[in-house]
Amino acid sequence: MCLGSRELCGEVVEALKGDVGVAFVIASTKTSTIPGISAAGASPQATLLTPTLDVEYVYCGRPLSADLIPVTPEGLPTPAVISRACLNMLRLPYLIVDAGAATPPKVPHVTLPGRVVGGRIDLERALPEGRSQQLFRECEGLGSRAFRGLDALVIGESLPGGTTTAAAILTALGVNAVRRVSSSSPNNPVGLKESVVRAALNRSGIPEGGVKDPFLAADMVGDPLHPSVAGLALGALKAGVRAVLLAGGTQMVAALAILRMAAPEDILRRVAVGTTRWIVEDRQSSIESLLRDVSPSTPLLHTSLSFRNSPYSGLRMYEEGYVKEGVGAGGLAVTAEVRGFDAGRIAEEVYGEYRRLLSLGAAKA
Amino acid sequence: MCLGSRELCGEVVEALKGDVGVAFVIASTKTSTIPGISAAGASPQATLLTPTLDVEYVYCGRPLSADLIPVTPEGLPTPAVISRACLNMLRLPYLIVDAGAATPPKVPHVTLPGRVVGGRIDLERALPEGRSQQLFRECEGLGSRAFRGLDALVIGESLPGGTTTAAAILTALGVNAVRRVSSSSPNNPVGLKESVVRAALNRSGIPEGGVKDPFLAADMVGDPLHPSVAGLALGALKAGVRAVLLAGGTQMVAALAILRMAAPEDILRRVAVGTTRWIVEDRQSSIESLLRDVSPSTPLLHTSLSFRNSPYSGLRMYEEGYVKEGVGAGGLAVTAEVRGFDAGRIAEEVYGEYRRLLSLGAAKA
Repeated sequence: MCLGSRELCGEVVEALKGDVGVAFVIASTKTSTIPGISAAGASPQATLLTPTLDVEYVYCGRPLSADLIPVTPEGLPTPAVISRACLNMLRLPYLIVDAGAATPPKVPHVTLPGRVVGGRIDLERALPEGRSQQLFRECEGLGSRAFRGLDALVIGESLPGGTTTAAAILTALGVNAVRRVSSSSPNNPVGLKESVVRAALNRSGIPEGGVKDPFLAADMVGDPLHPSVAGLALGALKAGVRAVLLAGGTQMVAALAILRMAAPEDILRRVAVGTTRWIVEDRQSSIESLLRDVSPSTPLLHTSLSFRNSPYSGLRMYEEGYVKEGVGAGGLAVTAEVRGFDAGRIAEEVYGEYRRLLSLGAAKA
Repeated sequence: MCLGSRELCGEVVEALKGDVGVAFVIASTKTSTIPGISAAGASPQATLLTPTLDVEYVYCGRPLSADLIPVTPEGLPTPAVISRACLNMLRLPYLIVDAGAATPPKVPHVTLPGRVVGGRIDLERALPEGRSQQLFRECEGLGSRAFRGLDALVIGESLPGGTTTAAAILTALGVNAVRRVSSSSPNNPVGLKESVVRAALNRSGIPEGGVKDPFLAADMVGDPLHPSVAGLALGALKAGVRAVLLAGGTQMVAALAILRMAAPEDILRRVAVGTTRWIVEDRQSSIESLLRDVSPSTPLLHTSLSFRNSPYSGLRMYEEGYVKEGVGAGGLAVTAEVRGFDAGRIAEEVYGEYRRLLSLGAAKA
């Protein structure tokens, strides 16, 4: 369940057995409203509200800013169902961090002064000049102050359109990424992503072969979330947190690419990516090779959680490549496994949580 | 250094030796702009910005929203100098919580959806109907989610005008408080406070003898901060945090009065007030008798920190009754003492921090 250096894997796993905290970073990018780019919402426009509904649901057990659980166009529920089930079991402390959600959540959350909704990267710059570095620094400060004293910090995210902006950031940094990032759909819209990323790079004048400055890349063709995640990780690690688990799929490789250019090697050795089996086994993306190209020594942990035997078709469809990951689902399931809950026990907890959701009339069986 | 039941004192002290987190709750009330009511700012209008500058200074070592350290009209520095010095020594994790500062801080902070600047209580209601209960519930949720797993939570506050609104809340709950709350001035403006509180109670139609409902009292004549502090304490304690230290002076008795009416006895036994020697020894107020009337069994801890031998007159004047307390100063000094730093060592750290401030040209020697 851990790919990469056995020594580094072991250190992350040990840290995850200690005092663990969680941060859910959320933001919106107008890139998610390009029809077909994101399945993280019932319609392209609805994807803008998804991060807000996700964290409201994690916090309250139901969304507040609209009377609906975030679903795919097919009606499949947000992976936050997994996140919430894991938090119910683990009782870990957590914070919600708003880096630029289109609608601020109606629950207590950390506001970053630099928060901003990301631009539609094929048409306009992602962020005002200097903003990604500002968000990175703000999150570095938050990470060191809010999380010092922990053994491990798990960082999850919700950013519809995020695999596309992640691909654009990585491409702008010279990494061949567009055909390796994953998707919340079983039919990864690779061609569409490719044309959006190409338009973004052309628009911003980033040279073939890329640039060195990750903040320039994020300002031009990225989004507010990835530099924020990288800063949070750096701050926590600098303050003595033993390990950071970037809880997400291929997007987290973009956060790691930003972090790598701002952090010394001894800090980087304490970062891992934690995700789902559905991401690792996905044939339309390749998190492992992408991660190896960006950060060869970074461990990749994945949960063995399966919904093959789910009584609910909405969850069984995860096994067919729908949804796959998000809101820290994979990394939190990894954390639950490390802390002694087996995959069957986690699945049962998710089914219970999903049953409760269905009783609210908010998702499809 | 602890007044009250030896058993309860001992339990709080033990918890403060473990994993401790800190929350700084800030808010503004227009009550602080009544000339003469608050010394927590260079002018009555300047007091509205003080909470924001206080937490920016704690976080960054300098304020951001204005180029000045919060000072009294005499130029004496904010007690946040003590808070920052203690945090420098203790390296505790902390969060800033904005319950309604007139200007949101330019550093990452928790936003409460119900945040609102409090009204000037002699002229208008303090909060919209139901808002204090909303803030209480939001903070209860935050306290249980952000701080679970800790042994102790220290809650500090910055709310200029807060002793007046605290006196109004307590009076509205039938507690004879106006002449027992403290002041940031050596000449407690008791007559002025009395007339403001009387005007507030008359305006709101609260009967002689008071009301039972703490949220009605806070909505009518209080402020956004005290119900928030009470909610944060309740949430943390319900989530298993062993002890909460309300780090402040007589204001914290108002938070305790709200908490008492919403929390079971076994929760209340795990709450203490932690403050400075300057508050406990103040002859113009009486925290001990006020606390005994509201919550007889609640321990009162105080630091032995003294500035008698300070090389800086700005700090020596604390010994003459200026400033006295705020931004968690007393409770954080108590925490430092419990964790093995003696009062002399804490004073040295404060002098060092103050020296640094003077070098920024931001305070008076």
